[in-house]
Amino acid sequence: MSYITKDDCLFCKIVAGEIPCHKVYEDDKTLAFADISPATKGHTLVISKNHAENLLEIASDDLAAVHMTSKKVARAAKDALGCDGVSILQLNGEASGQVVMHYHVHVIPRMNDDGLPLGHASERKPQTEGLEETAKAISQAIK
Amino acid sequence: MSYITKDDCLFCKIVAGEIPCHKVYEDDKTLAFADISPATKGHTLVISKNHAENLLEIASDDLAAVHMTSKKVARAAKDALGCDGVSILQLNGEASGQVVMHYHVHVIPRMNDDGLPLGHASERKPQTEGLEETAKAISQAIK
Repeated sequence: MSYITKDDCLFCKIVAGEIPCHKVYEDDKTLAFADISPATKGHTLVISKNHAENLLEIASDDLAAVHMTSKKVARAAKDALGCDGVSILQLNGEASGQVVMHYHVHVIPRMNDDGLPLGHASERKPQTEGLEETAKAISQAIK
Repeated sequence: MSYITKDDCLFCKIVAGEIPCHKVYEDDKTLAFADISPATKGHTLVISKNHAENLLEIASDDLAAVHMTSKKVARAAKDALGCDGVSILQLNGEASGQVVMHYHVHVIPRMNDDGLPLGHASERKPQTEGLEETAKAISQAIK
């Protein structure tokens, strides 16, 4: 089976088997493997085998498949590690901290008091100015 | 149309129209509305209309629908606000910082230097001990 790939994409090379990984799960559309720089024990990345840079670009069936796999991995992490919770994080663009430009979901097992920040990890006050107008602007731009 | 609801669930009350929201988008399975305590301008929550507490419990079709809607909202935020990136965050369990126990996805528009942390917002060193063995343990627990 062949996939849409991109030259010089780290995750496309992992899908192709050209770079090794610690595989957690694989199906026809997705691959899950250990993050080599884990935020917590069991931190796993779930990717689409087809190359897409981010959420704005990924095909709908690949997007659904990635999140089905994330659910499997989250359940398995709870069963295997007994974690207290799971954070799901998916970054789009350098402004968010995305490093590898191939759509991927972080499945991060959480333990009570594991030392990672909770929620959005922001201590500043909520950015509530123009909340209603902004919601309308986004709503009107929905396609 | 009726949904699986839970008494005393804030988001079920929003779906039912018993509590108001600034609506961004709605379809038969999902609702998107402004987070009233936004981390950044345009911070939107996407929920399943059916009640499910978290990723471990949500039905597959609801999970797929929520992420399709998140994609629409992310694209619209980019078009309407000109944001540089988008962070997607979905929390499961108090250990992760989940506050409302109804599955929801945070769509957080990002601007360069917006003051929110990047990535997982963790400055501690990676938790790499036993990485391969942990990946295997999770893999074997996949159902």
